[in-house]
Amino acid sequence: MDYYSGYISKLIEELSGLPGIGAKTATRLAFHILDMPTEHVEELANAMVNAKANVKYCKTCCTLTDQEQCPICSSPQRDHRTIMVVESTKDMAAYEKVGEYKGVYHVLHGAINPMAGIGQNDIRLKELFQRLKEDIDEIIIATNSSVEGEATAMYISKVVKPLGIKVTRIASGVPVGGDLECIDNITLLRALQGRVVI
Amino acid sequence: MDYYSGYISKLIEELSGLPGIGAKTATRLAFHILDMPTEHVEELANAMVNAKANVKYCKTCCTLTDQEQCPICSSPQRDHRTIMVVESTKDMAAYEKVGEYKGVYHVLHGAINPMAGIGQNDIRLKELFQRLKEDIDEIIIATNSSVEGEATAMYISKVVKPLGIKVTRIASGVPVGGDLECIDNITLLRALQGRVVI
Repeated sequence: MDYYSGYISKLIEELSGLPGIGAKTATRLAFHILDMPTEHVEELANAMVNAKANVKYCKTCCTLTDQEQCPICSSPQRDHRTIMVVESTKDMAAYEKVGEYKGVYHVLHGAINPMAGIGQNDIRLKELFQRLKEDIDEIIIATNSSVEGEATAMYISKVVKPLGIKVTRIASGVPVGGDLECIDNITLLRALQGRVVI
Repeated sequence: MDYYSGYISKLIEELSGLPGIGAKTATRLAFHILDMPTEHVEELANAMVNAKANVKYCKTCCTLTDQEQCPICSSPQRDHRTIMVVESTKDMAAYEKVGEYKGVYHVLHGAINPMAGIGQNDIRLKELFQRLKEDIDEIIIATNSSVEGEATAMYISKVVKPLGIKVTRIASGVPVGGDLECIDNITLLRALQGRVVI
């Protein structure tokens, strides 16, 4: 990296640290940034620093927000007796984009993954179980359909069911528009096991 | 983008403005940045602002550098009578990585492209022709092997040749390790036209 000015090399190095950005992409981005007007570069840099400085966890559902309590948790229009448990703020946003769900959320920020050393105390499960002391009708588990997501779902259901709270899991099956021949065996099996009367 | 805190949305929006980064990648990067330690985020932001503030054009060859004159132009070890003309600082770095070339460079910052409205006055050609007033033995044109790069090469050669300076163009042909059947017709034709006695 001695071929560039120290400032350019430093920028390329920093950008290469981002996920999915290799040396070539980082170089391309660095030169693009050098080509941008100064005020745009400052805006981009400030957006990073400001987001990092102001975004924290919602005290109730643990999603990333800039308020003490996120807009969903503080909304009287939402059904606070139904909690959907998701792995990340992005997953919560995915369901919010659908717009149909009227309950509240709980964001775990990960899933149980013993292989990676992530146990039940490393994700926001304690905060979820704390919420069960209030009147809750249903816990909808919407962790990913991966081994880790399933393990997390099992663990939550094992803890919550004895409390007499209804625990459900979002359906697993063939995605809408999915071509059967392109879908993996486990999904096909799940779709068969989870068949519904029409 | 109302599903996220304003700070997160702003960060996603800013990142989406970078080339090759769509909404999904920008979201992934934004959440990665939120997950980074504060000092790393500040380092990344500062790298951008500092690069933009300190990097300027070399007064001789127009490459991007943080000095008045770049290290290559100010080096007495380089042959200042041979100038390689390239389209970008990245192209210059590519040849510097090879390490064999001992002359100096001239960076055009683009190529003539009438379709995009880029004429000879929009790239650093004036600065190149200015340099020809000194003793120059050879101009090696290493613009890209694209229509724009070729047009630029033709234009330079037309201006420089009448001055009695040797003008050369880097060879065009089959890349080393290239499989003939995978190479396009024009490259194959060029390779045939440019054949050398062995």
